[in-house]
Amino acid sequence: MLNSSITLQEVNAKGWVRTFRNNQFIALNDGSTINNIQCVVDFENTPEETLKRITTGAAISVTGTLAESKGAGQQYEIQVAKLQILGDSDPEKFPMQPKKHSLEFLRENAHLRVRTNSFGAIMRIRSVLSFAVHSYFQQKGFVYVNTPIITGADAEGAGEMFQVTSLPLDNLPKTEEGNIDYKKDFFGKHTNLTVSGQLEGETFAMALGQIYTFGPTFRAENSNTSRHLAEFWMIEPEVAFNDLDANMDLAEDFIQYVIKYALDNCADDLKFLEARLLEEEKSKPQAERSEMTLLEKLNFVLENNFKRVSYTEAIDILRDSTPNKKKKFSYIINEWGADLQSEHERYLVEKHFKCPVILFDYPANIKAFYMRLNEDGKTVRAMDILFPGIGEIVGGSQREERYDVLIEKMKDLGIDEKELYWYLDTRRFGSAVHSGFGLGFERLVLFVTGMSNIRDVIPFPRTPMNAEF
Amino acid sequence: MLNSSITLQEVNAKGWVRTFRNNQFIALNDGSTINNIQCVVDFENTPEETLKRITTGAAISVTGTLAESKGAGQQYEIQVAKLQILGDSDPEKFPMQPKKHSLEFLRENAHLRVRTNSFGAIMRIRSVLSFAVHSYFQQKGFVYVNTPIITGADAEGAGEMFQVTSLPLDNLPKTEEGNIDYKKDFFGKHTNLTVSGQLEGETFAMALGQIYTFGPTFRAENSNTSRHLAEFWMIEPEVAFNDLDANMDLAEDFIQYVIKYALDNCADDLKFLEARLLEEEKSKPQAERSEMTLLEKLNFVLENNFKRVSYTEAIDILRDSTPNKKKKFSYIINEWGADLQSEHERYLVEKHFKCPVILFDYPANIKAFYMRLNEDGKTVRAMDILFPGIGEIVGGSQREERYDVLIEKMKDLGIDEKELYWYLDTRRFGSAVHSGFGLGFERLVLFVTGMSNIRDVIPFPRTPMNAEF
Repeated sequence: MLNSSITLQEVNAKGWVRTFRNNQFIALNDGSTINNIQCVVDFENTPEETLKRITTGAAISVTGTLAESKGAGQQYEIQVAKLQILGDSDPEKFPMQPKKHSLEFLRENAHLRVRTNSFGAIMRIRSVLSFAVHSYFQQKGFVYVNTPIITGADAEGAGEMFQVTSLPLDNLPKTEEGNIDYKKDFFGKHTNLTVSGQLEGETFAMALGQIYTFGPTFRAENSNTSRHLAEFWMIEPEVAFNDLDANMDLAEDFIQYVIKYALDNCADDLKFLEARLLEEEKSKPQAERSEMTLLEKLNFVLENNFKRVSYTEAIDILRDSTPNKKKKFSYIINEWGADLQSEHERYLVEKHFKCPVILFDYPANIKAFYMRLNEDGKTVRAMDILFPGIGEIVGGSQREERYDVLIEKMKDLGIDEKELYWYLDTRRFGSAVHSGFGLGFERLVLFVTGMSNIRDVIPFPRTPMNAEF
Repeated sequence: MLNSSITLQEVNAKGWVRTFRNNQFIALNDGSTINNIQCVVDFENTPEETLKRITTGAAISVTGTLAESKGAGQQYEIQVAKLQILGDSDPEKFPMQPKKHSLEFLRENAHLRVRTNSFGAIMRIRSVLSFAVHSYFQQKGFVYVNTPIITGADAEGAGEMFQVTSLPLDNLPKTEEGNIDYKKDFFGKHTNLTVSGQLEGETFAMALGQIYTFGPTFRAENSNTSRHLAEFWMIEPEVAFNDLDANMDLAEDFIQYVIKYALDNCADDLKFLEARLLEEEKSKPQAERSEMTLLEKLNFVLENNFKRVSYTEAIDILRDSTPNKKKKFSYIINEWGADLQSEHERYLVEKHFKCPVILFDYPANIKAFYMRLNEDGKTVRAMDILFPGIGEIVGGSQREERYDVLIEKMKDLGIDEKELYWYLDTRRFGSAVHSGFGLGFERLVLFVTGMSNIRDVIPFPRTPMNAEF
């Protein structure tokens, strides 16, 4: 009786046909879940003309009785009383037929790939992860700050920048000296797309205490790798009165929270992607397969503290490592001061520690100008978090809060202090210890979904020579 | 006894000095709230040198006993045992002294204005409203979609666009014909900053059912008004199978939810801004003052349905209105088909209906190509939501789902169908009724905070000739 109150009720469902078997069984999906609902068509009483139009990709509306399914594979099904074709999908033309497509083919059809099981799952997980990010910070009283996308500042040096202009390129206004007259541009000056909201974020942290940004950032770098995008979303918290240890605690707690949130709220989608990954790995040689399944990997991150290792310790480990001695690294580590390449990061994370690693206290001269100088005078309070399969997922630091030390560093590097007067004001007026980090959102999505190319975890990827849609 | 367990405990607080009275009473603020905590300094046992450094804007750390306050104006205070100056703030130089500053002066110091009561409150409310937006849609199962910021499509025509390029402007590559060779640009083509994520959002709604975007959008328009920004944040939900009525229901429910969320979660900040507004209006003549206080206005929106009026009805009302007959409007309404100006919108909202208004079914030729044509052949299923004091806060429509009608319209308007093949694919494969709208986030923040200039509700405003910070 209780059951019959759930089943045997009249329902209407609208969605898209995924498959249609035996002129009878429609797998219908409305995008809200990975789980299709089976709709059973009374094919003897349905016109042949209608049956023909029930094709993969067609939009339909079905009305009928929700009942326990007699077939295997699903608990409930809709026994269709009325079926309406809302929008046809010509099987000769619709590219997303129910068969295996290459990821490359799907990327070229980014406007349609989200109709597949895999990309539906990825995009739902991405959305839930976004909300987890906001939930974490808002619960802790952080203020969400929208730092500017178009910026007149280009001193940060986090990477190559895109120029933003409304000048007519085929008829550029010139000054008397023959230079481009940026006074005539929209903002009256040369402007770029932001590479980071950190500097502006710091000005807000020194007023509101705890802030975070979550917005698009840009790099005009010709990096055609599976880990780089020209346009990506970044999360940048900044906290007044936090030192580097508190910063590491925050980053670790934050990452564990959002991964747990995904495990709790995306169980079906994650299970689907786990199976997809196992299937994909079957074609690989045993040695290249993952030691853990996707869910095991996510739970491992939750259950184990990130290993905290100083740069100096890391250099010792790398210098004594087998691939360094056997000259298997492309860049051999000889001495303290070397910049770490992704091969070294991967060795530390995947071979040596076999867990997420936080490297800290890097040499000052391989890190940005705003990082706090340690008492040793040669290292700065920087940290990078390295993840298996992903490499760097977080970069952060305690910031140099001492005006005199900061200005000295800027002079050394030739950074114009007039242009950054507003940043320096945070050190002129009520300066204090503060720290923050940046987390590349797509790298997090990459890790959680188990995908291997960053172009597959953002709706419409922007990469060199590609700005379709 | 219960009270003594709350008070009389040792606490540490770090923050910035707002004021320091009588060499004894510090008003300390850490940015988490509008309410300062009073810290009572034992000035007889504090070195003169330290007392002098307790200035407005200085960062300090105090340790002491939290106790019930004997003074009026606060319930608790910290009786300071230990005080440390973390960062000085020279009273001769710090611009944010505790006195009345003009909003224009504060805009020029956007990196410091957030240290004032008003801008702290505004930015906290903005943050809470952002979270309300995400909470609303996520609870309803919408998928958050990050549509691209850099776009190769420029057919939507929602406004003038900024160009994005990595070409060297002083040495542009040219084709043999002498044109700029965009094949050599980063993306191999001419690219712009997005004016709307709608078209890409539609492709996702036709797969995931219910989606929303919330990201920055751009207009390179030389509009120096108190309602326009060159860079602003927009929220764009899109729902498969929703018609225009369902779209209006969604917009109204959504706006009421986020306003209620702010009332529930920003009570202190709203109360402060309400008082600020009352104070500001004292200098205005009686006739120009608001009829309602800020909180009354917000509650009014919650308690009253938005008035739904067709464009045709609105034209009749305007034609018969006193300002039209007395030729007080700059644009006199003579006949059906006229585009409504903000003076007309304000008349309808503020004088005639005195409540939020949803206008719908506009003439096809004053609206965008993708809006669904009504059976009358001359109006489209468009809607605009108009708010008192703000004007248009939402623009939306049911989309033209019929491939043949859409392609005909695009041909009429000279829109290249090849460039929008991916958009047309949503109508080629499994098309269905669907609707959506765009809400300018800053206009919502403007309404909720009661501010009157949109530059005061975004951290670092971008407007013509202004991209500082």
